[in-house]
Amino acid sequence: MEKVNIVMVGFGRVGQAFFDLLQSKYDYCRRRYGLFLEPRGIVRKKGSILLSSTQRVLSPSYFATDDLHDLAEWIPAITLADLLDEFGSGVLVECTPTDLKTGEPGLSHIKMALEKGWHVATASKGALVVQSSQLKSLAKEKNLLIKASGATAAALPALDLGLYSLAGAEILAIEAILNGTTNYILTRMAEGFTYKKALEEAQQKGIAEPDPSLDVEGWDTAAKIVLIANQVLGTDFNLGDVQVRGIQGISREVIEKARKLNKVLKLFGKCYREGSDSPWKIEVGLALLDDDHPLARINGTNKGIIFYTDTMGWVATSGGKSDPRGAAAAMLKDIISIYWRNT
Amino acid sequence: MEKVNIVMVGFGRVGQAFFDLLQSKYDYCRRRYGLFLEPRGIVRKKGSILLSSTQRVLSPSYFATDDLHDLAEWIPAITLADLLDEFGSGVLVECTPTDLKTGEPGLSHIKMALEKGWHVATASKGALVVQSSQLKSLAKEKNLLIKASGATAAALPALDLGLYSLAGAEILAIEAILNGTTNYILTRMAEGFTYKKALEEAQQKGIAEPDPSLDVEGWDTAAKIVLIANQVLGTDFNLGDVQVRGIQGISREVIEKARKLNKVLKLFGKCYREGSDSPWKIEVGLALLDDDHPLARINGTNKGIIFYTDTMGWVATSGGKSDPRGAAAAMLKDIISIYWRNT
Repeated sequence: MEKVNIVMVGFGRVGQAFFDLLQSKYDYCRRRYGLFLEPRGIVRKKGSILLSSTQRVLSPSYFATDDLHDLAEWIPAITLADLLDEFGSGVLVECTPTDLKTGEPGLSHIKMALEKGWHVATASKGALVVQSSQLKSLAKEKNLLIKASGATAAALPALDLGLYSLAGAEILAIEAILNGTTNYILTRMAEGFTYKKALEEAQQKGIAEPDPSLDVEGWDTAAKIVLIANQVLGTDFNLGDVQVRGIQGISREVIEKARKLNKVLKLFGKCYREGSDSPWKIEVGLALLDDDHPLARINGTNKGIIFYTDTMGWVATSGGKSDPRGAAAAMLKDIISIYWRNT
Repeated sequence: MEKVNIVMVGFGRVGQAFFDLLQSKYDYCRRRYGLFLEPRGIVRKKGSILLSSTQRVLSPSYFATDDLHDLAEWIPAITLADLLDEFGSGVLVECTPTDLKTGEPGLSHIKMALEKGWHVATASKGALVVQSSQLKSLAKEKNLLIKASGATAAALPALDLGLYSLAGAEILAIEAILNGTTNYILTRMAEGFTYKKALEEAQQKGIAEPDPSLDVEGWDTAAKIVLIANQVLGTDFNLGDVQVRGIQGISREVIEKARKLNKVLKLFGKCYREGSDSPWKIEVGLALLDDDHPLARINGTNKGIIFYTDTMGWVATSGGKSDPRGAAAAMLKDIISIYWRNT
């Protein structure tokens, strides 16, 4: 039995889902893994909350309110540094919004946590896209782990597969469908929709943002494949290294042509190299897949990734909820894997 | 940097492939994971071999010869117990033939290894089908790990997914295609072959055994789904608990009927329960899948598994070489995951 201190920073949709999950899974994690996962504090932009263990059973909406000044537990003076110092060690759960240019504010939070001896589980991509190798060196030096399942494709176990299940094999190439919005649009277009109509439907369903550019121009896929490559292949890519082509304004004819060839079009993030000594290349763009390609049937908002290896052949994984609850579940998994050895 | 002693028992196709792989990956594992994976001895029915580290670079065929008496390194008097005592700790790599009734000889080897403080990586199913919970208790008591990736579906990361990637999620059901021979036959039948012709072709290609009954009657699938359930769900099934229906003699009409409904037939190993407090059920039989089922396109000798969960939705994995080299790669992965924390 082990107590694990958890400090959260960021309390948007993913943060709230994580806090909710942590409470509902508290007893399960104690029974199954011998871990007491104790939320100790939540740092929001508008102020922070110190939790005593008796306060564990609180609804996320309680913290989500803007009117925190009315709450007794509301301690505006407490900073992230205070909380990390107070509890000494544990896991920082990073859920602040992603900034792909600066990596902030996640970058500063993650650095601070590592310097103070805390492991990190992050749902925020920015820091690992911008300063992957520096953060990895810092973690290694301190003998700590940075886990980023929640930042790549929510509950799709992309990093687990690359780092854990393929250990000992050399990865020759990676192909991945990592963006639900674009995959949904392409799926609907293969069913007969125009780009415009498919996008509108995705927006109505809350799948696509009102401004869908980050998704449809391929940048979300680019950030995720950069993160995966840096974690799994040990590269030091950033967004500027990726050749990015999105799907914006793609015509029905292109989709139809693919269908007539018995093929499908998918937006891929790809890593490959010419030979085992050549440098890795990374790109995002439409890929024309044979019908029996393992990712050809990943439809709708589903995601998938395939690794080609020297000794294991190809190994693919697909599925995994891609909503805030899926991302939260991925972070919980990461925390468990830091402490639990699967005996 | 850590030295890991490895003692092997059994030296058939998988054992030889593992030994070969260990030599070719020695430097890679040192560089990438900081692990010196040192083969210390090989126990065969016909006698054992003690390896000094300078003897590491030897071809498997050197050991595979029946004429071991001519070899200087051939030490017939050395037993598994001697080797485990001599080197004190490390990993026992179990590659003896599977006996699904008694679990022997693997069962005795694994017990001995655990009692002497050794971790276990096994490619042999028998012991974990026959005495799963006893072996797990023994391992837990000794703070050791039993890893069985190589025993389930070679390089398909079925156990990794269930134990590691889904940590914290509750598994609601499992469905899996775990037998290459039957999946090959069903794939060819969907393409127009009769059962007889598909089986003959599989035998000619070395996919099916001359006596294919273990595969086509569903017992291989049954053993694998029992092993997966016992490891992942903590059940204590044995083969007698499984309702098993194979594919022997299945008619073209059945396959054709499925095709007309735009569905496919696959031989599934399945675990499910009525409610979260109901007992688990386990069965093997043909499943009629919708065309968009994540396992519907797992064709030929490929394998796949899907887990349905409470918090992550469904997560599937497919692929992974299913030949001796794939099983060897799975055991190497298991050994690395015992010692390496993926920083």
